[in-house]
Amino acid sequence: MGSFSTVSDLPNRQILLRRRPSGLVKPDDTELITAPAPEPADGEALVRTTYVGVDAAARTWLDGQPGYLPPVELGDVIRAAGIGEVVASRCDAYAVGDIVTTLTGFQEYVIVRDDLFTTPVADRDADQLAVMSVYGPTGATAYFGMTGIGRPQPGETVVVSAAAGATGSVAGQIAKIAGARVVGIAGGPEKCHAVVEDFGFDACIDYREDGLPAALKKHCPRGVDVYFDNVGGPILDAVLGRLAHKARVVLCGVISSYLTGEHPGPANYVSLLAKSALMQGFNALEEWSRFDEAFVALRQWELDGRLKHRETVFEGIESCVDALNGLFTGANIGKMLVRLS
Amino acid sequence: MGSFSTVSDLPNRQILLRRRPSGLVKPDDTELITAPAPEPADGEALVRTTYVGVDAAARTWLDGQPGYLPPVELGDVIRAAGIGEVVASRCDAYAVGDIVTTLTGFQEYVIVRDDLFTTPVADRDADQLAVMSVYGPTGATAYFGMTGIGRPQPGETVVVSAAAGATGSVAGQIAKIAGARVVGIAGGPEKCHAVVEDFGFDACIDYREDGLPAALKKHCPRGVDVYFDNVGGPILDAVLGRLAHKARVVLCGVISSYLTGEHPGPANYVSLLAKSALMQGFNALEEWSRFDEAFVALRQWELDGRLKHRETVFEGIESCVDALNGLFTGANIGKMLVRLS
Repeated sequence: MGSFSTVSDLPNRQILLRRRPSGLVKPDDTELITAPAPEPADGEALVRTTYVGVDAAARTWLDGQPGYLPPVELGDVIRAAGIGEVVASRCDAYAVGDIVTTLTGFQEYVIVRDDLFTTPVADRDADQLAVMSVYGPTGATAYFGMTGIGRPQPGETVVVSAAAGATGSVAGQIAKIAGARVVGIAGGPEKCHAVVEDFGFDACIDYREDGLPAALKKHCPRGVDVYFDNVGGPILDAVLGRLAHKARVVLCGVISSYLTGEHPGPANYVSLLAKSALMQGFNALEEWSRFDEAFVALRQWELDGRLKHRETVFEGIESCVDALNGLFTGANIGKMLVRLS
Repeated sequence: MGSFSTVSDLPNRQILLRRRPSGLVKPDDTELITAPAPEPADGEALVRTTYVGVDAAARTWLDGQPGYLPPVELGDVIRAAGIGEVVASRCDAYAVGDIVTTLTGFQEYVIVRDDLFTTPVADRDADQLAVMSVYGPTGATAYFGMTGIGRPQPGETVVVSAAAGATGSVAGQIAKIAGARVVGIAGGPEKCHAVVEDFGFDACIDYREDGLPAALKKHCPRGVDVYFDNVGGPILDAVLGRLAHKARVVLCGVISSYLTGEHPGPANYVSLLAKSALMQGFNALEEWSRFDEAFVALRQWELDGRLKHRETVFEGIESCVDALNGLFTGANIGKMLVRLS
């Protein structure tokens, strides 16, 4: 049974969307306000956000275009997935002290309904950073994309772009566990170092320094069997030009175009024909019913010491927009989070 | 046992490649010569070509770029798949009078080795037009592309480009047999008429007349579940912009770019991500060992009256180059053939 405590007078700082951004989010695009934390009604609970996750998808929701979720409307709190603690409850599903993951948004308190589907409960002693990095949509995305579409085989060559990012770092490690040779692509020496040293990839190409076609030829002499693409644009095109026979290209994201809305078409898509290869998009949320299967596997790998996660944590609600912009300027290694309490 | 007859003094007219063409094949790119028909050695047979098939792939072999077959060298006979009759044999595999399919090339006589893999024997009373249209690589391409990658389900919407062509016309009929609603794309009223009236598609879009996005929206109100692409270019991009959830795009050819060598990238490839869709290339020749499976199914459908084939037949070796160019100028409905004897 849930318990009820009054929450009147708790200040709830929130970041509202005031104007649809063009490119990076500018100061006038959002407003930080303080509202009273809402009282939960019957069948609801109040959650205090611990960490809010910052994903590229959050930027797409600001654009006013319908996607798998509706756009954030002007005046609404900016949508984001986070983790928090139940501080008041008027429903059976959640007790005070429960740790839940939900669409917290960029705010310190959020009302959740009695709905274990959209607001599942984590172990009270769970590592909240790991939940955000691995045991949620990010880890599930890496798992289903790599195991369901990529299907790396021992000895194959796997390339992962945005390899230092939350999804790429996990996806590459899954390929490594499957016995593949894994080559990351990332921007800058610090990230490339993390990709090899922290996440255990066999090599990492710095796309800012290395000529991509030549670097791919050097690191993938027999071609690319699996490409896990988080970026689109010229990097996708370069890897398509290096595919091996019967390659699989996993389309996970197009971060190169989220700011511009422009998606240059990859001319080398014809390699799919010449190489009898496939390119497939997916949305891990459609596999929601199988998340537990993913988490069991990921948990075992983490316990075995074969799966590492890292986070880049910004502090305080004031830094949410900087964190969101930072995704596009290369500020994060691993999952980008903002600690709110 | 094969039998031997002398073939000395038979004239063998051949079309040789003299210069690599740019765009359509020009008169100086090829030369029609007359050589004596070669004598078969031990383990060989001599075949008189009946029909030579003209495929877009034949044009790509003139470009000097390695593909799944090496390029045709200057001075060589232009490569093409055909059908003919054994007129002399010094091997066990073939008897005089056998009907065989092989890479005849653009020539009236060809030597074949004792190799039932590359030169299989057809029934002596087989309809040679049907063998070229349906019971060979063309039919197998339609079959494996549509059944293996497209996998149309009853009630789904399937779009086929180059729908009046040899592969597209068969592919669309296979989708129809599977219970799908099938919309063709073709150029000009004569072809569109054939697509609907001869091949039984539900509708056909004339890409020269109709605005493609609007026509796709009209004919595919619930989106495109399967797209069988023979053309690439702007047509591929337009259909990608209309995909349904979990759509399958079968990459079979890129005829729009075979003359230019340029493949504009389809900007709407991002629909694959938004729609959890896949795009896959294939080469039916890789499924050679399963051709019989395809032909059994195709034969039954033809006997049932559910699968029609048409051919556009040019006459005489002098018209081979016109037939090849005609593929790119829209001269054929169904399989393009040249009758040589």
